Amino acid sequence: MARSRITPEREAELYEAVLDLLRTAGYEGLTMDAVAARTRSSKATLYRQWGSKPELVARALRHNKPVSIAEIDTGSLRGDFHAMVDRMDDCQMEKDSALMRGLAHAIHENPDLHQALRDLLIDPEMTGLDTLVQRAVDRGELPADNPALKYVPHMLVGAFIARPLIEDRSVDRDFISSYLDAVVLPALGI
Amino acid sequence: MARSRITPEREAELYEAVLDLLRTAGYEGLTMDAVAARTRSSKATLYRQWGSKPELVARALRHNKPVSIAEIDTGSLRGDFHAMVDRMDDCQMEKDSALMRGLAHAIHENPDLHQALRDLLIDPEMTGLDTLVQRAVDRGELPADNPALKYVPHMLVGAFIARPLIEDRSVDRDFISSYLDAVVLPALGI
Repeated sequence: MARSRITPEREAELYEAVLDLLRTAGYEGLTMDAVAARTRSSKATLYRQWGSKPELVARALRHNKPVSIAEIDTGSLRGDFHAMVDRMDDCQMEKDSALMRGLAHAIHENPDLHQALRDLLIDPEMTGLDTLVQRAVDRGELPADNPALKYVPHMLVGAFIARPLIEDRSVDRDFISSYLDAVVLPALGI
Repeated sequence: MARSRITPEREAELYEAVLDLLRTAGYEGLTMDAVAARTRSSKATLYRQWGSKPELVARALRHNKPVSIAEIDTGSLRGDFHAMVDRMDDCQMEKDSALMRGLAHAIHENPDLHQALRDLLIDPEMTGLDTLVQRAVDRGELPADNPALKYVPHMLVGAFIARPLIEDRSVDRDFISSYLDAVVLPALGI
């Protein structure tokens, strides 16, 4: 990959255009032609820099989340989880949840997209979450054999997707914060 | 509604055809013409009996779940939850989760479908779940002010949707059973 050929500003501008198109047209409706037109690039450049549409989409989504969860280290799992929420933005979460809804379907239809998202987005976030939880185990905050440990990602991802279906409302910081205190931490025995 | 004009067998056959078409063509691709052709009915009959495509789809999904959760009453919340899982079927759950994935997107695009699903499927299931939990509160199994009470639906629905995204596997009875014991019951303090 020769991504160094374009400036970081130009790269950010391009990713923003990809996310805008994803929100409005969906994954199927997003064409490399539209990205090229919108960003005044040539399709050849897009393919040379990103290889494929799934990788371009996965990198654009990854660009949205520049800070790794593993960098959070407040000294307690409760503190780490709430610091994670504090970094979120209500408006951004609403946009993210619209994107996720559209992508959940596209992922199933496009194995290449699923693989690219897994490599660039899902696995790194899961690893970051594991790091927070492992640190808590190492500090003695919770036992290594707590059966809820392996379900931390399910609890968090599930909350994001379930709320719009159940309550007709997208998630916001207040909801995630309350869910952490009522469900995630008690399930872990904290 | 004059649903009594057709036999229960015929009604079941029709709903099964609607669910098959939903799985293969998706909500957008499911047309009343296709349902009519597949079931050798006239479109006029379909509209007379069900009023609209969203209602037909919601009734077909509801037909899949003939037993109300509220009828489960084993004497303990742990028993009730596990009885709920025992009634499920691994193969059925895999089919349901394919349906839900397709519908999550369609719901967002079609407010009429969302309303019909809410009236016929989501609200009754939520009410059934509330009944189980309220009985446990009445028995003194858990305090009425437990902050996790209001998140029981989020925990359960979330587990169903999150597993395929995180683990690339649809849910089965073993997973839900383990999730109940590791997450849902401990979060409730049981």
